[in-house]
Formats: sequence, structure tokens, C-alpha cells
Amino acid sequence: MIYFNSDYMAGAHPEVMRRLIETNLEHTVGYGCDPYTQQAKDAIRSACAAPNALVQFMEGGTQTNATVIDALLRRHEGVLAAECGHINVHESGAIEHSGHKVLTLPDTCGKITAEQVDNYITNFYRDETYEHMVAPGMLYITMPTEYGTLYSLNELEQLSAICHKHNIPLYMDGARLGYALASKACDVTLPDIARLCDVFYIGGTKCGLLFGEAVVASNPATLPHFFPLVKQHGALCAKGRILGVQFLTLFTDNLYERICAHAVVLAQRIRTAFVNKGYRVAIDSPTNQQFFILPNDVIDRLRASGVSFEDWGVRGATETTVRFVTSWATTEEDVNKLIEIL
Amino acid sequence: MIYFNSDYMAGAHPEVMRRLIETNLEHTVGYGCDPYTQQAKDAIRSACAAPNALVQFMEGGTQTNATVIDALLRRHEGVLAAECGHINVHESGAIEHSGHKVLTLPDTCGKITAEQVDNYITNFYRDETYEHMVAPGMLYITMPTEYGTLYSLNELEQLSAICHKHNIPLYMDGARLGYALASKACDVTLPDIARLCDVFYIGGTKCGLLFGEAVVASNPATLPHFFPLVKQHGALCAKGRILGVQFLTLFTDNLYERICAHAVVLAQRIRTAFVNKGYRVAIDSPTNQQFFILPNDVIDRLRASGVSFEDWGVRGATETTVRFVTSWATTEEDVNKLIEIL
Amino acid sequence: MIYFNSDYMAGAHPEVMRRLIETNLEHTVGYGCDPYTQQAKDAIRSACAAPNALVQFMEGGTQTNATVIDALLRRHEGVLAAECGHINVHESGAIEHSGHKVLTLPDTCGKITAEQVDNYITNFYRDETYEHMVAPGMLYITMPTEYGTLYSLNELEQLSAICHKHNIPLYMDGARLGYALASKACDVTLPDIARLCDVFYIGGTKCGLLFGEAVVASNPATLPHFFPLVKQHGALCAKGRILGVQFLTLFTDNLYERICAHAVVLAQRIRTAFVNKGYRVAIDSPTNQQFFILPNDVIDRLRASGVSFEDWGVRGATETTVRFVTSWATTEEDVNKLIEIL
Amino acid sequence: MIYFNSDYMAGAHPEVMRRLIETNLEHTVGYGCDPYTQQAKDAIRSACAAPNALVQFMEGGTQTNATVIDALLRRHEGVLAAECGHINVHESGAIEHSGHKVLTLPDTCGKITAEQVDNYITNFYRDETYEHMVAPGMLYITMPTEYGTLYSLNELEQLSAICHKHNIPLYMDGARLGYALASKACDVTLPDIARLCDVFYIGGTKCGLLFGEAVVASNPATLPHFFPLVKQHGALCAKGRILGVQFLTLFTDNLYERICAHAVVLAQRIRTAFVNKGYRVAIDSPTNQQFFILPNDVIDRLRASGVSFEDWGVRGATETTVRFVTSWATTEEDVNKLIEIL
Repeated sequence: MIYFNSDYMAGAHPEVMRRLIETNLEHTVGYGCDPYTQQAKDAIRSACAAPNALVQFMEGGTQTNATVIDALLRRHEGVLAAECGHINVHESGAIEHSGHKVLTLPDTCGKITAEQVDNYITNFYRDETYEHMVAPGMLYITMPTEYGTLYSLNELEQLSAICHKHNIPLYMDGARLGYALASKACDVTLPDIARLCDVFYIGGTKCGLLFGEAVVASNPATLPHFFPLVKQHGALCAKGRILGVQFLTLFTDNLYERICAHAVVLAQRIRTAFVNKGYRVAIDSPTNQQFFILPNDVIDRLRASGVSFEDWGVRGATETTVRFVTSWATTEEDVNKLIEIL
Repeated sequence: MIYFNSDYMAGAHPEVMRRLIETNLEHTVGYGCDPYTQQAKDAIRSACAAPNALVQFMEGGTQTNATVIDALLRRHEGVLAAECGHINVHESGAIEHSGHKVLTLPDTCGKITAEQVDNYITNFYRDETYEHMVAPGMLYITMPTEYGTLYSLNELEQLSAICHKHNIPLYMDGARLGYALASKACDVTLPDIARLCDVFYIGGTKCGLLFGEAVVASNPATLPHFFPLVKQHGALCAKGRILGVQFLTLFTDNLYERICAHAVVLAQRIRTAFVNKGYRVAIDSPTNQQFFILPNDVIDRLRASGVSFEDWGVRGATETTVRFVTSWATTEEDVNKLIEIL
Repeated sequence: MIYFNSDYMAGAHPEVMRRLIETNLEHTVGYGCDPYTQQAKDAIRSACAAPNALVQFMEGGTQTNATVIDALLRRHEGVLAAECGHINVHESGAIEHSGHKVLTLPDTCGKITAEQVDNYITNFYRDETYEHMVAPGMLYITMPTEYGTLYSLNELEQLSAICHKHNIPLYMDGARLGYALASKACDVTLPDIARLCDVFYIGGTKCGLLFGEAVVASNPATLPHFFPLVKQHGALCAKGRILGVQFLTLFTDNLYERICAHAVVLAQRIRTAFVNKGYRVAIDSPTNQQFFILPNDVIDRLRASGVSFEDWGVRGATETTVRFVTSWATTEEDVNKLIEIL
Repeated sequence: MIYFNSDYMAGAHPEVMRRLIETNLEHTVGYGCDPYTQQAKDAIRSACAAPNALVQFMEGGTQTNATVIDALLRRHEGVLAAECGHINVHESGAIEHSGHKVLTLPDTCGKITAEQVDNYITNFYRDETYEHMVAPGMLYITMPTEYGTLYSLNELEQLSAICHKHNIPLYMDGARLGYALASKACDVTLPDIARLCDVFYIGGTKCGLLFGEAVVASNPATLPHFFPLVKQHGALCAKGRILGVQFLTLFTDNLYERICAHAVVLAQRIRTAFVNKGYRVAIDSPTNQQFFILPNDVIDRLRASGVSFEDWGVRGATETTVRFVTSWATTEEDVNKLIEIL
């Protein structure tokens, strides 16, 4: 069996596991006050060229989004997001559980534009009854998007400028950020993101760790009193150093870059193979998720041959959109086998 | 340096780490639908003699309490708890964040009685204005308590009976449950707890795991729609099998019992040593937390000699209450060294 | 100056004021336990042919929607509503403040169909990841809608049937319900609504009262523990009889029907006048709100002549949609004057 | 029958009703944008000697407390209050519904001291784990207290100074404020309160209005974006002028002062009568609530003679604490009759 279902099917990168084992019996204080966590924070600050940044490790993506959004919004405000945004669709109402409305914008392949944001906010305040409506209080974007697509540096600069023109923070959900940064199509760097986004998070769960996400705010004043809020949201890891050790490993010797690049290269090989076979690409993704429209009999044959992957949406009458995902744990042999079966 | 500060200073028990390494590169589906999680649930059902129990793995204690309490209470209800209860004092308002009031009862060494609960509820409904007040909707207890003390089987049976007489669920926070069950003073078993508590959780973070807590409800109907609520609370582990593998290891070959018993034996040796030296015991705890009242110069001398432990409350003028905690990771040598220094 | 801006510009119907004055110096117990409130509840039960109905008086529309929806939904559920629905657009996030997501359906002139609801729910449970999404837990509709349109008895029966097929309650926001029931185009009666909707409210603020809305649930078990929830939402009127006296007056001698019919007749006269003058109707409304597309110079001339009314949306380059609203307080002279000016 | 049960048993003061009738058929815009509301705000600003104050009319006490506290607190903060405080006991969890914990201080006859507040906050930040606890974010006091007692100017100045020393706002619940200001024992004025409290509210429901409370913040920056929050909390009155007309009347020709003074004088006559008869005063209240300890047979005899009043707490074996409340609606004849019966 070879798996392309998602990028969180395996455990942690062996190097991460090695460091967890090596440090396992050490005694350190809890809640992220240990030296490994401090070193990991410094490594991330350095990678982001944001020497004063607030860095806070969290356990998972939904809790990270819920906590950051709750921290950034005032009570009468909501969060602008693409209709397909993870917080709008796949977090079981975690944002609303904290009292905030998700204000949606139609997206193009997962992306929204600075113009859309500008128009929304401008029209909002033009409406005389705007105080009866939920004010747009921040912008949420994902990089790469739900569909594996990327914002260019230019687009990101425009989004950042529009947000700051309207005095709202820009927040980037980076659950798969490594797979964006590793893409040849990506002209954005971590320091760019740290500079342009008021807050973002570097996803670990999908990029080599057992679990863990790193929230980064270049200006710590953006997230005042964040620690008790993390605790209140149930997102504070008691043995905080488990996250510290993992992230420190990820940000040592470019491990993060290397393992994500590996996944993206394999994803592009898969893409080329499908295209060469004459299959259609559903969404043009330069990252580790690939979407194809396949005849149902091809889908069935692949699965019968031991290839595991997911339908993307409902199965069609004769053909269906499917998703193939690679990760740091995908091997060249897996991809070779897939191409061979294909 | 030898450490008695808390029971979450080391990583996971080596056996747990070994299994994480062994399974690390396997590919499994996420969110707890993998076979390890299923086996771990079965192992816990078996240990609890609760074959139909709902078992759900969570990441940490605060999120577990917040999610379970949110699931059990109706909106007009609050949770009865001891004044010193963790949910009332040390969770940064996580319960109130979900909209619920903590209704406090004065405790004796961390414990509350069935009579207190009975009186509270009876008086509540005698008050003609009770619909203007927060209704007691469940009872929260900890085992062992914040002070390391235990409920006897008889006390637990009474609490359970009173709760059910008043038609409210009984919930036990078992962050350190293993250290209770392993105590010679404990006449309660896991099956007793599963029978008497509507919901409880078996803490893993403080008892041998990297992180993780197992919520158990003997009757699954007690926690309907619990899965989306876990997700909504940001408590759903994407790589669920990380929790499954850990708990499965803990509940194989009595590992949970053995490592907790080890900690409790060492704690009792520490206690005996202090008592033999003529120091006063602050709270009579038969579990892995020990509380002594020590002269300040003794405290300072111990610390100067490399013994790390915490003040329990504010430092006094001449003497101070201190806490010594053991865990599965405490070694006999550590304790020997402590006694020697003493 | 003559006013057609909204239906809450005047105080209460003179008959309502007369009864408030007559009873003003009586002493009664608070919170709705007085005899007037009891009589008003009985009068509403009788008008609804729902002898066992729970009837609860509230102070305003937003708090009524927030409280009822909070009472009906479980925590993992959201409320299905038309995109233009008041709870989605004009309540400053009151629903989300209580932790619930508004799940929107595109509407046609304010209305949604049973088929849409059926498809939404069916597709929701077909998605394998549905437990990661907000479950549709109830349906919210308005009658008349935001655009003054009506559901027919047949449409309402279908919506009710679909909701009950999927085991979710149907809730109707009746802020302007009287103006629906009084319309010649309406084939629905209060008993029909009480039979088909699990919960609905009869708006008083826009239909003759100083303030006040009456929540009705034919089966009281639909809203268990509603009283403390009303208090928790800050929606409990201390001098409850103020609401009781007002609603009792409204439901005595058909006052509610008579004053709403008066408003609708005048609205239709306005409509006829505009149509006769060759102006376009923007939305075909058979109730007390009328929407026309007028040349901007006509709009300006009307306003210069002392006619007050509102633009409906943004002013266009040459013509603009406007809204004319009548109420029980609109007089024949007002309408004659408008027609004359026209 | 003569009534001393509470101060919200009658309707509105006749002068208030007269103005409501006079203005009843006028057409004004909604939501408090009408001229009466503006005039009423100015009248209150003038009475408070706070010319720039934000004044916002609300419908009732619980919603006022919930909204103001929600506006003043950050998410990780709770509200300090006396154990007997209305928000802690009698609001069905409205504060917790908005996500905030009530942090209680033991009270003496309803009052708390600046020293208590100082100690609480100082000790809080001395605890190394304070970020795991709910931070004290504001102070809530009532004037008069639940027991009819008063803070002196000196006490209020100390509370204000301590709050500002610790950088938290002071909020006063003035549901019965008029009965405090009208007491001979009161050395505090409205301008004092406006100067010393960051926010307070002037209760109308218990002091002559049908319903309505006026929130006052001398510095409007204390309550930014308050309007949408009022709407979100369901506390915005559609026909806002109903509140404006009522409060304008109350603050014209000293009506507020006169009617409250009337009530307090009668309450003191009742007190003197009971004391002269040799009955014990339970709490020394200089305002409109009087608490006596009466033999049960006296209580029964009074009630049999047509005097209505409430037990304060549970009925005792031989004697019981009872409460007598006067209001603007209590007449001299009522009091004469009571004294005669006594």
C-alpha cells in the first residue's frame, strides 16, 4: 500500500524523534519555560529575521486559529476569510465558539485579493447601519491555500498594505507553510511573511513534527496577554519542551526547508506523470497537494493496485476530482510505484 | 541536581518512546480513526470493565476539563467544584470562556462531601428565585485532589448516589489518577470509578506520556456529539495515533500501574525520611505529592545542595510549606541522595 | 413632514397606552408572574389555537433571536438562514456571541425553499468529514421576509415537513408577523404557524407596542429551562406586566389584526399610486414594506416636499431603489398627501 | 392590601407616563438617534457634571451589567465583586455567558474595602503562576448595596484610587442609585460618582420608569465601540426614544431626586416604627430597603392584615429576617396603615 491521502499520516521526521529520545529523561520546567523552547524561539526569530518576535508554540491548527483570532479581535468584530477557508468550513465552529463571526469573501482557487478586502471594508463603513453589523476586524489567509495555491510577494504586499490602510491585522494560517516556501513558484520568504503579516503560524504537524504549531508576531505588542489566553483556550502544552525540542530540530540545519522541498519535488513528479498520461489537472497547484480529474475506472484501478488517495468532493458519474498529497514521509519508491501503476 | 518540582518534568516513559519510534514511519488515517487508537480504546475499556464505554483521547488537562464540562452542562447550568479545584483556580477561566460558572464548595484538604453537595442542591431549589441563579448541573471532583488526598470507595459511592439522586452527572478529573490507584491507601479501582463516575479522565501527561488524556464515559449516551465538540474546542489531535500508541503502551502489561506505584513508593520513602527527621507533614497525602512544613534554613540548605522543589504558597517568616513530587521518572538514587542530604 | 422610513417611529397604539395608564399605579409581582401577563399568555394561546403553548415575553427582536436560537441549538450546531436574514446581517454578531454559526442559503426575494434545506442537510451528512463542520441544527425564517414577501401555507408546510424529516426545529422570526397575516396575499393563519413552526415570535415593537415580542412554542418541551436562559441573556423584563398589559391589549378585540390590516391597506394604496405613475416596483411585496425604483430627481423632489423615506442600498447614478414603510401609526392623510405630492 | 415587597411593583411615575402619552404619536428615528434621547443624555451629563460623558440607555439591569463588563474586560480578565453581588448571585450566569469569571471578595453588609481589593491584586501578581489564573480586570460595586448600605465619599475615593493604582476600571451598579443619593446618610453626589467611577449606571426601572438604565462613562474612551456591543448583547431599544423621553422627564425639575427622597423618608418612618415597637434591625440601612428580625407570629399577623413583604432568606424556627421596600409609588397612607397595624 502506498499513501497519498494527506500530509499527517506518518509520525515525526526521524531526526525529530532522535532528539526527543536524546532529551527524554532530562528534567525541565513546564509550560514552555525550558531552555529548548527558548532556543527554538530564537531559531525561529532568526529564520524570520524578526529578532523581537513573540513566538508561542501551540498543539494544533484549530486551537491556534481560534486562539489567535480571539486575541486579535475586539468583541464587535469578525474575521474576513475566503469562503473555502479552513476556519469557515472545517473547524466545527471553533471561531464562533469564541464569539466571532467569519465574514466570507468569494475566493479564486482559494485566494482572495486586496481589492476584495478594500471593497468590503469601504462598503461596510459606507452603510449607515454599519454599527448593526459585524465589523471586519482582521484578515485571515492561508498559505498555501486549501487548494495548494500561493500568494505572490506582490499579492501579499498588497494584502498587507490594504489591511494596514484599514487598520486591521493580517493573519496567515501556515499549516502547510513549509510546502509553500519550498515551491519553485514561491517568491516569498519567511522574513517577507514576518514583515508583511502581523501574525502567522508555522505549521509543524504537517511538516515533520508529531504535533505543534509556532505562532509568530514580529511585534509582540500585537498579541498582548497572549499566554493566559493560550491557557484559557486549552492550548498550553504542560511539557512545553516537547514542542521546543521538535521545533528546535526543525529549525536546525535547514531541516524544515529540506524535508518540505523533498515533498514538493515528489508532488511535481506526480503531476508531470498524470499530465503526461493525458489526465487533466483540476487546480494548478505548485505545492505538495495535487488535484486531478480522473475517469472513475482509473481511480478504481489505482486503488485496486494499492494506491491510497482521496476523492475531492463528491464522486461524479464518470469522472471525479481526486487529491494526491505528498509529505516529508513520502519516498521516491512510493512515487515510482505510483507512476509505474499509472 | 535532583528534581521534585512536579510530575511533568521528564518526557515519556522509555517504553512509550520505544513504541512511538517503532511505529513512527507507518501511515495511518488521522483524527483517531487509526487501529492503534482503536486498540488503545479497547485496552482502556477492558481496564475499566466498561465494554461499551466512549473513550476519547485529548491533548491536555485544561482542554479536557473545558470540553467535557461544556458537553455535560446545559447553558443555564454551572459546575459544582471544590474551591481549590483546578478548574476554579488554575485554568485561566477556560470554563467561563465556554459560558459556564464554577459553583464552589469549601473543601477539606481538597475533598468535598456528599452532604455538602446534597445541601447545596436542596437549598438551591428551595430558594424561590432559583431560576435567577446558576443551576448546579454537574459535580467536578479530582482524584487524587490538589493536595494529594483520596476519596474512599465509600465516599465515592455516596457522591455518586447524591449526584444521581439529584439527576446530575459526576465527573472526575484524573490528571494524576494513576498515583491514586497505586496508593496503598486507595480502596478504589478503575472499574469502580467507571461505574460510579458518569465521566472521568485518565491523565497521561503526568503518568508516563509525552502528552495525552483519555476521557471515559461508561455510557456513551452521556456525551452525545462529543467528537465535533472536541474539534470545536481545538482538542482534536490530527495525528491521533500518537495518542493511541502512547495509551496502548500504557495499558499493556500493566505499565500504568507499575510506573505509578514506583512513584508512590518513593514519595512515601521521602515522607518517612522527613518525619523521621522530625519535620511536620502539612497535609496527609498517600500519593505522589508530599507537603511538609520546613524551617526556612532547611529549605535553603536543601536547595543549595542541589535539591529542586517548590514552595506551596507564600514563603513564611521562619518556616514554609513545601511540596515534593515524584513521578515514574524519579529514581531511587534521586531519593537516596535527597535522604542523604537531609 | 410625513414619514415612511420604518414601522417603529411612533410610540404605542393609543389603546395600548390607555391600558398602561389605567394599570399604572397597581402593584404586581415582577418578572412576568403577574395576572396581566398570565391573561396575555392565554389570549395568545387562544389566538394560536395552541392551548398548552409556552409563551414568553421578551423586550426586543435581537435578544429574542439570540435567546431562542441559543435555547434550540446544541453546541456543535448552527442555524440555517437566508443570506439576507436579519440574524446574519443586522444583529452585530449576537448569534455568534452565543457561540453559534449562521449557515447561509442563497435566498430569492428573502425566501428559501424546502428543497434547499433538504439538499443542504443531505449533502452535509454525505460528506465524510461532517463532524469537522458545523451541523445544521435548526432553520430560521422570517415572515414576512426582509423584503416584505410571504411564505404560502404550502411552502410553510413543506419547510416544516423537511425540518421534521431531518429532526431539526423550525423557527420563525415574526418581527412584522401582523403585517403578513393582514395581507390579502397571505393564506396562512396564526394557528397554522403555531402548528408548523416549533417556535416563533409575534413581534410587538413594530406592530403597536412600545416594545415587546412574544415567543410561542406550541409544545413547551421544545424550550426546556427557557426562563433562566431568558434571564441569562438579559432579556427578562423586571416589570414584566408592562409587556403583559401591552400584549393583552393587542390580543383583545382583534386590535392586532385591525391595526396591521390598516397599515397593509395603506401600503397597497401607495404601491398602486407609484405603479399608476409609471414607476417600477423593485420587489413584489404584499405587506407593509414597498420597494420602488425611482429616478433620483423624483426622490429628491419628494424629500424636498416633506416626504421622509429611506434608500434601499446605495444611491445609483440616475435611479435608486427606495423603501416606503407604513405602520398602524400611518394615517390616511399621510398617504393622501404623499399621493398628492407624487 | 399594601405592598412593601420590592421597588418595581408599580408602573412609571405619572409625570413619566404623561410625557410618554404627549409624545406618543410623534415620529422619530430609532435606536436612540432621536432628539429626546439626545436631550436626556445632555440632562444626565449636566446632572453628573460630566459634559463629555458617553451616555447609553439600556433596557434592564442584567443586560447592562453583562454588556458593560464585557466591554471593559479583556478576555483573560475577570471582574472583582462582593460575594453577595448581583452579578455573582442573581443574574443566571449572564457574566459567564459572555466568557468572564466573577472573582469574589467577602463583603461586610454588602460592602468591600479598598484594602481588600489592594490585597487581592497584589497577592495575585505575587503568585508566580498568575498567568494560569483569571486576572482581576475591573471592580464591580453596587450603591446602595444588596443590603441597602452605602459607600461614603471617603470609601469611594479609596476604592477609586486603588483601582487606578492597579490600572483597572471601577464600575458601579446603580440600579437603586437614586435611593442612595436621596439618603441623609449619603455624602456622595452624582458628580462625585461620575468623577470616581470609570463607568456607572443610573437605574430607572426601580426609580420611576417603566424600564430603562442609563450607562455613564465620563471619559467616552473607556467604552470604545460600545454601540455595536449593546446591539450584540440584545440591549438596544428599537424605539430608543421611549427611553429618552423617560430619562428626560426623570432628569427635569429634579424629579429623580424628589421621588427617591420620598421613598427614603417613608422607609425611615417604617424603620422608626419597628424600632419603637422594640423589633430588631437586621442590617443598618439608610436607604429604601429595611431589614428587620421579627417573631414569626408578628410576621403572620401583619400578612393576615394585608401587609405584603418578603422573607429575607429562609424562615426561622421562631423569628425570621424580613425586608420592607418602599419606592416612589409607596404612599404615606400605606405607611400610616402599616404603622397602625403594627
